[in-house]
Amino acid sequence: MDTHIKGVLARIFFGKPIHNEEAHHQTIGKAVGLAVFASDALSSVAYATQEILLILAIAGAAAFHLSLPIAGVIVLLLAILTLSYRQTIFAYPDGGGAYIVAKDNLGEGAAQTAGAALLMDYILTVAVSISSGTDQIVSVFPHLLPHQVTLCLVLIGFMMLMNLRGVKESGTAFAFPTYFFVIISSFTVGIGLWKLSRGTLMPVEGVEMVKTTLQPLTLFLILRAFSSGCTALTGVEAISNGITAFKEPRSKNASSTMIFMGLILGFLFLGITYLAVHIHAMPSESETIISQIGRAIYGNGLMYNLLMAGTTIILVMAANTSYADFPRLCALHAGDGFLPRQLTYKSGRLVFSWGIIFLSVSAGALIFIFNAHTSALIPLYAIGVFMSFTLSQFGMVVRWQKIGNKKKTASALKHTTGQEEAHHLEGWRVKQIINLIGGIASGLVMMIFAFTKFTSGAWVTVILIPAMVWLFFRIHGHYKRVGKFLTLPWKKAEVSSYPQMKTVILVDDINTGTLRMVRFAKTLGHPWVALHVNFDHARAETVKLKWNELIGESELVFLYSPYRLLLEPVNEYLTSVRESMPTGVIHVITGQLIVPGTFGPLLHSKNARGLYDELQKIERVIVTAVPYHLEKRKKVSANLL
Amino acid sequence: MDTHIKGVLARIFFGKPIHNEEAHHQTIGKAVGLAVFASDALSSVAYATQEILLILAIAGAAAFHLSLPIAGVIVLLLAILTLSYRQTIFAYPDGGGAYIVAKDNLGEGAAQTAGAALLMDYILTVAVSISSGTDQIVSVFPHLLPHQVTLCLVLIGFMMLMNLRGVKESGTAFAFPTYFFVIISSFTVGIGLWKLSRGTLMPVEGVEMVKTTLQPLTLFLILRAFSSGCTALTGVEAISNGITAFKEPRSKNASSTMIFMGLILGFLFLGITYLAVHIHAMPSESETIISQIGRAIYGNGLMYNLLMAGTTIILVMAANTSYADFPRLCALHAGDGFLPRQLTYKSGRLVFSWGIIFLSVSAGALIFIFNAHTSALIPLYAIGVFMSFTLSQFGMVVRWQKIGNKKKTASALKHTTGQEEAHHLEGWRVKQIINLIGGIASGLVMMIFAFTKFTSGAWVTVILIPAMVWLFFRIHGHYKRVGKFLTLPWKKAEVSSYPQMKTVILVDDINTGTLRMVRFAKTLGHPWVALHVNFDHARAETVKLKWNELIGESELVFLYSPYRLLLEPVNEYLTSVRESMPTGVIHVITGQLIVPGTFGPLLHSKNARGLYDELQKIERVIVTAVPYHLEKRKKVSANLL
Repeated sequence: MDTHIKGVLARIFFGKPIHNEEAHHQTIGKAVGLAVFASDALSSVAYATQEILLILAIAGAAAFHLSLPIAGVIVLLLAILTLSYRQTIFAYPDGGGAYIVAKDNLGEGAAQTAGAALLMDYILTVAVSISSGTDQIVSVFPHLLPHQVTLCLVLIGFMMLMNLRGVKESGTAFAFPTYFFVIISSFTVGIGLWKLSRGTLMPVEGVEMVKTTLQPLTLFLILRAFSSGCTALTGVEAISNGITAFKEPRSKNASSTMIFMGLILGFLFLGITYLAVHIHAMPSESETIISQIGRAIYGNGLMYNLLMAGTTIILVMAANTSYADFPRLCALHAGDGFLPRQLTYKSGRLVFSWGIIFLSVSAGALIFIFNAHTSALIPLYAIGVFMSFTLSQFGMVVRWQKIGNKKKTASALKHTTGQEEAHHLEGWRVKQIINLIGGIASGLVMMIFAFTKFTSGAWVTVILIPAMVWLFFRIHGHYKRVGKFLTLPWKKAEVSSYPQMKTVILVDDINTGTLRMVRFAKTLGHPWVALHVNFDHARAETVKLKWNELIGESELVFLYSPYRLLLEPVNEYLTSVRESMPTGVIHVITGQLIVPGTFGPLLHSKNARGLYDELQKIERVIVTAVPYHLEKRKKVSANLL
Repeated sequence: MDTHIKGVLARIFFGKPIHNEEAHHQTIGKAVGLAVFASDALSSVAYATQEILLILAIAGAAAFHLSLPIAGVIVLLLAILTLSYRQTIFAYPDGGGAYIVAKDNLGEGAAQTAGAALLMDYILTVAVSISSGTDQIVSVFPHLLPHQVTLCLVLIGFMMLMNLRGVKESGTAFAFPTYFFVIISSFTVGIGLWKLSRGTLMPVEGVEMVKTTLQPLTLFLILRAFSSGCTALTGVEAISNGITAFKEPRSKNASSTMIFMGLILGFLFLGITYLAVHIHAMPSESETIISQIGRAIYGNGLMYNLLMAGTTIILVMAANTSYADFPRLCALHAGDGFLPRQLTYKSGRLVFSWGIIFLSVSAGALIFIFNAHTSALIPLYAIGVFMSFTLSQFGMVVRWQKIGNKKKTASALKHTTGQEEAHHLEGWRVKQIINLIGGIASGLVMMIFAFTKFTSGAWVTVILIPAMVWLFFRIHGHYKRVGKFLTLPWKKAEVSSYPQMKTVILVDDINTGTLRMVRFAKTLGHPWVALHVNFDHARAETVKLKWNELIGESELVFLYSPYRLLLEPVNEYLTSVRESMPTGVIHVITGQLIVPGTFGPLLHSKNARGLYDELQKIERVIVTAVPYHLEKRKKVSANLL
């Protein structure tokens, strides 16, 4: 495509490039921060209750009342995690994701594990949220059911574009829907509780419950339901990963946003679960729990449709949390040399383009494989999040211990510590205990999850995370090797020219290109020879004649290639030259026809390019491809194919 | 992939490379020639009768008796074409396809049209033959119906491999099945006629006829049925395209093969149509006419199964005719500059690999799109063949006229002509009339075909052929331009060095690569400057320090790029240098890290390569990428990712 057109298209889709100096303006306040980072956590209320009921249904509808105490325990866990993470936000104002905290306190292995777990879960967040979002749409418009996968992929494509434009603009674009959901869902819970208290809330009707083979209610089943419900807590850590996106004072803004988010999440999750039990909501293939609650409270009117729209949109927005965090975490791994370096590349719009694209493609693939079936994705989900919670919290425990030890030493040595540092060190033991409780709770949930969901899908995660960590270390090994190779051990005095250099021109035919190569060689001023590989003796004669007629200097060496191979005879020739001078280099000059346009180049074989690539691989051979440009005069180029 | 492994795989799939001197051994005798070139024509008896009945069915089963006179007319046409083409074979012993004959006598426009028409039909031959072949399989094994498309694609893949190995081996491999079909089908027709004469041939039973809305029997319908039946004649021209594949005396061998083929084809087509009428065979969705005839004659025994196997295999082999001709015709077009030159490339096995691959992919796509439904493909088919027949025959008419004129002139001037030439010129008028009849008959069929099949699919062909011709001429225009550009108008004296040359080294960091670039520049011995594009002032300071410490000579120029662009600042700098010397060249030296293995390179961005490509596009800039190779020591490389 024409470079100019490419530029114009890039502007339309991604906006104009951002100057280095503008970079720090790309931060967000608390209000937008909530919209960007909290939608993941908040949106999970759309499916968490339903997933609990879906497991309890195995023991029959009578077990549904257990959903309330289960939700209670989960909200308690939420409180613990919010308090723990609040401490992390203040301790790591430059971004305190599990990766950084683990790396700082537990070492590289723990950091890579935490990172791998989170990366997997970010991909799953997109897949689960988008699937669940389209579940809501399908609840309202059942005729869209056959197109659910397509719908998902279109949504992911849209989000990819938004995020390639940059986080601030997408944050603003997503603020309205997030608040719309918070208001409509809180209002719904409020109205529901009010109607319930007046005795006017009737059980929902016309729901066909999923079919299951009844089993007895065991502790295992209750724990499984609890695990499913814990998906409500995914996304709680999002803010701690994204502190740098906040306006100054970063930590304070991030922390307030996190606490506010925890309160809303707890209220909605408990409220929805409470209402679900009281309207006798039932998990169903064709209608979500949110839809059942909406119908019970509002009937089929405007308010019901607003609730469904809000829920759908928040789920779509939730996926956006991953778009904010996944590329940033990839860049962290890549910066440390555990993922391909390309992931640290910031585009003209200051976003990590490759991370955004990789996330979109992986999530799209998952949705395609699992046919946008939310319940099938759930067992793979959340285990990674809880693994990273655990590592992060234990990292904090170690950190407080170090600080405590430092304080003790300071006291023991009777050194005076500055006012600020003293304040910072105060109460380290209390903080340590808070993080310890957070860590133990998360670790417990992770183990319960892995155990109760193993056969239904968690095994995938259990295999994939170590595999990813292994891959990360392989990549790291490669970069270490390259770094060692590139580092210069030499001193200034050793920058000398090569003791010998032979110049060889590769000649295919005698034409404009040949002329340019010869002119270049003559300009360099070193002696040279020309080389021609011939498949056909008659043609060789013609080439010889033309050479003598038109160039007529130096020597033209002919290499006969009966198997019509090009590289092999050249390689053989170069090898013999290299052997004749063990420390010299060979400068090979080839030609390259440069054809402008999009279709023109397709009419010319890539042989020259292939030969160039192969010759470059030979030690002590340096290749120059002298370009000859097909004229670009406007008139002619319009005629070009 | 490792080059060695690639080599081994290539040997297994394609066989060992063939030496130039072995090339002429790759020709075939009459027996193998019949197998290679006649299978297309012969195989069409498997569907031609059925396609006639399918159209007649619209007027009800009573119209089926018309299939016999229709088949009679088609066989007459076959006789005309065989005689016409026999003359072409002798007139063009180096290959007398429609393309060559039209080019020689009617000009470039007619040649490109004939070629485009034939290329389209070769692709359709593969699609139709393979679809019909699997129709036969599905007649015998109805449970394979859902997998018909997959079956087709596997067969095409197999043929592609066979043909990438080379024509002789595939000819030998296909000889047995072709003869097997000729014998089993002739035997079946013979037994059928014998049983019929003794009155023991009973009508076939249990066939469910296709459902159609009855229409009156019109002339239009009869002509449509005739058009469908003419698909029996596709492939008749195959031998004239492939004369060079025959052993000497080429023309004689090719001609005998063609006449023999015509006789078998006529006999089988008439015989099968005659039997179909007498056993009351009916076109059906679930059983082919061949299967019905087989059942009527043999019941469900061994002979029935042999007949079906033979028919299936000949249809698969038929597609192979296209594999012999399509790549050869593509190479002709490409050699004249009307298709990409890459199509003239002969592989180590002396076959035109790209043509074979293109044919396979296009035919596969057609089968996929039309869901392997033979009757849906038929209306697109044959029109191209008859167009090329027409052009070829009229080309011959013009040729005879030229020869006649020459003879007249010779007689008028009373020159004595040699014995041989006199013999050659004798009877030119008779020959001209034969070709004229052939041309008129083909042209008529083509028009009937286009008219009666237009709405059911022929419009695609009617649009595509001119589009292809247009494209061919666009490609030709491009190559003419390139050829003009490459031709050297200069004389020997003008090969001078460039009046000025500036050398610029692009420096990213100070490392092993930098050292190699500097050493190369110093070896060249011209003055040089180094250039560093910096995104970040702090890093620029480090680079400056390292440069002074480790290199410490010449000048390092810094270009600040606030939008983090690489190419643009370099380009700007080069432009200013180019403006300062209107006739000089700039030699840009960059570095390129060469990472061995398959996965290793993925860990390094293609930025260097992209920059190289862009710089090469600038006039008067010549780029050398100095390679630095990551060591390939076995031990280390085993550790590589």
